[in-house]
Amino acid sequence: MTADGPAFLADFATLSGFGATERGGVHREAASDADTEQWAWFGRWLAARGFTVVHDRIGNQFGLLERTPGAPYVLVGSHLDSQPFGGRWDGAYGVLAAAHAAHRLAGERHPLNLAVVNWFNEEGSRFTPSMFGSAVFTGALDLGAALDTRDPAGIRVGDRLAATGRTGTGAPALAGIAAYAEIHIEQGRVLEDTGSTIGLVEATWAARKYDLRVIGEQSHTGSTVMADRRDALLGAARLVVLARELSDELSTADAPLHTSVSRMKVEPNSPVTVAREATLNLDLRSPDEPLLARADALLHERVAGIERSARVEIVIAGSHGWGVQPFPAAGVELAGEVADGLGLSHRRIPTVAGHDSVNLNGHVPTVMLFVPSVAGISHNEREHTTDADACAGLDVLTGVLRRLAAGEISGR
Amino acid sequence: MTADGPAFLADFATLSGFGATERGGVHREAASDADTEQWAWFGRWLAARGFTVVHDRIGNQFGLLERTPGAPYVLVGSHLDSQPFGGRWDGAYGVLAAAHAAHRLAGERHPLNLAVVNWFNEEGSRFTPSMFGSAVFTGALDLGAALDTRDPAGIRVGDRLAATGRTGTGAPALAGIAAYAEIHIEQGRVLEDTGSTIGLVEATWAARKYDLRVIGEQSHTGSTVMADRRDALLGAARLVVLARELSDELSTADAPLHTSVSRMKVEPNSPVTVAREATLNLDLRSPDEPLLARADALLHERVAGIERSARVEIVIAGSHGWGVQPFPAAGVELAGEVADGLGLSHRRIPTVAGHDSVNLNGHVPTVMLFVPSVAGISHNEREHTTDADACAGLDVLTGVLRRLAAGEISGR
Repeated sequence: MTADGPAFLADFATLSGFGATERGGVHREAASDADTEQWAWFGRWLAARGFTVVHDRIGNQFGLLERTPGAPYVLVGSHLDSQPFGGRWDGAYGVLAAAHAAHRLAGERHPLNLAVVNWFNEEGSRFTPSMFGSAVFTGALDLGAALDTRDPAGIRVGDRLAATGRTGTGAPALAGIAAYAEIHIEQGRVLEDTGSTIGLVEATWAARKYDLRVIGEQSHTGSTVMADRRDALLGAARLVVLARELSDELSTADAPLHTSVSRMKVEPNSPVTVAREATLNLDLRSPDEPLLARADALLHERVAGIERSARVEIVIAGSHGWGVQPFPAAGVELAGEVADGLGLSHRRIPTVAGHDSVNLNGHVPTVMLFVPSVAGISHNEREHTTDADACAGLDVLTGVLRRLAAGEISGR
Repeated sequence: MTADGPAFLADFATLSGFGATERGGVHREAASDADTEQWAWFGRWLAARGFTVVHDRIGNQFGLLERTPGAPYVLVGSHLDSQPFGGRWDGAYGVLAAAHAAHRLAGERHPLNLAVVNWFNEEGSRFTPSMFGSAVFTGALDLGAALDTRDPAGIRVGDRLAATGRTGTGAPALAGIAAYAEIHIEQGRVLEDTGSTIGLVEATWAARKYDLRVIGEQSHTGSTVMADRRDALLGAARLVVLARELSDELSTADAPLHTSVSRMKVEPNSPVTVAREATLNLDLRSPDEPLLARADALLHERVAGIERSARVEIVIAGSHGWGVQPFPAAGVELAGEVADGLGLSHRRIPTVAGHDSVNLNGHVPTVMLFVPSVAGISHNEREHTTDADACAGLDVLTGVLRRLAAGEISGR
């Protein structure tokens, strides 16, 4: 372990106390009290170590180390917000590792400056969509629309940011960023299963995501003849089952298909009234684009069958998706060399989950690193990464950041 | 149409204005502002016509006509509360018909007294369970537990009743009731399909009702390997589909099986987190008790299969049920004679839906009447009964009430 490994682990223990749950996880959705407390703590941490703390208008928090006045920044970070009853590592590990890595380099002179970032609302559980702050930063999401987004209780992002003072000017713009790096827990089992310490993320899986509305008709759950029912919840349930069937039928060991429905709202959700409407999300993800296209075609085909059998109408209320997106080969090479230099095992790996790095990738040279997740558990209070792996990841991130600061693969 | 038919229809139009929706229905869940306004209006209506208006502690509203001091009451009524975006007729028709029928008899002398009742929270959509007020009245539901019941927003029944002044003493007790009568829309298509104006309800279908908890485990919807998932929403969806399959497999023309799931809550209900828990209701209903028992056995058998295939645990958090419950034959006979006397077609019919009369039945002689529902539509804003049928029902109810007041089938 590098000399300041214990300091990093001590800070991580402090960070894990914000929104801590009884079962060892954290519950700190974006702009919640717990998220606000940790944001304030992190700002004080940065300021105490000579970082200039600034914000942009969507609540992204930056710690700047400007050693070469006017030069572009190498940006490094992740997000501190969590899923409801989520794990301590998801996002928070990457932000704190970024801060420690930059702090380690604070005494060095490089052609490029360093900036640490804590992206706002990566999880998207409270304010939709996910990867929110980095999407505004890169222009994928309109600032005004983002500020007007409301949580299920009706609280507006802009109002919440203003109330907590988490907004400002003076943050670097995308045009001032030379490169981006992020480290994250894998959230899968590949590194653990292959005995690798560092994952060199070479691409994102392709994905298709749908917001679906199932429209039925209210009626009495008791007295309505079965043949007369137009049960929106039955239609929605068949969609959930269909999503799983697509994975069961089409997945192969080489080309897996991950499918899910995780959110559902039923109206009127009464004990004696057949549902008139159900809304749900349905995701398809695969590293194999032709397979994903086949799954998507099959989904549409079978949706029509569900419409007939449940006597409902199924409307696509929203959809988005992306193809397999590679990260720059030069960054994967560079990170592999750093890991080799530290004597750490590594392997190339795709990311299935989205990350803020996915938003930055394509705009600036982006390096994405993984450390192992014990048993692949994530979005769960039992999410874990060992101290040794966490410190090894910090060491690799530091080495990568040093070479990016030297301008090895700069986009500016 | 009897002379005061137009007055009844005018009052019904007034009543339908409380909580009126754009599509011709009503939205007035128990103790909502709309329900409170109609309750106050109905109290004034009764008082203006010489009824003594009193309440019991669970918010049941009574209008007493005591012509024979100290004699037991014949009770007649239904409920004014509605489902969310429900129909105008369900319950409200029965309460107003009861009030008009009693008012028609106000000038007559009978051995028994008359009391009209508006039962609190029959629908159960806001405060569970349904048939709430009549269950407290008959002792099936504990008063303290009922007052402590909260809606999804945390509002307590007792607090809401106190705040609106809808509570009191001086209401008749069950021991003071000689007989009960209720008229309701059918909520099915039997009367319409057979061209009958009056339904003489001879029995309630048997039912088994479950509250189920499906327990899975949170994980990432993208990165978690499919085989590792314990998806509570998938388990819940398979239960919804199973309920429909049981009906498809076991129903016959002679012995239908009605099944439903209409309420579901998903945790954490986040776009990128596999659900850790889902709760839902599952109902089975049939007029054929052996068939219901077969369906129930099959349900339990297949739940075990869902637990295995979705890797979830399914827990029965609550259950209740009842067998086929006949209404007293003497009341069915009496009501048929009244309809014959008015020249109205009638037929014997079961009720699938629960009614307050189901709670009263077994305690006091109970007569339950139906009028046709156009196309069988119910718990829906398009619920409808024709003016002619509504007035015919009022006439039959008046005739039944007269004979009950005469003591023809008194339980006291």
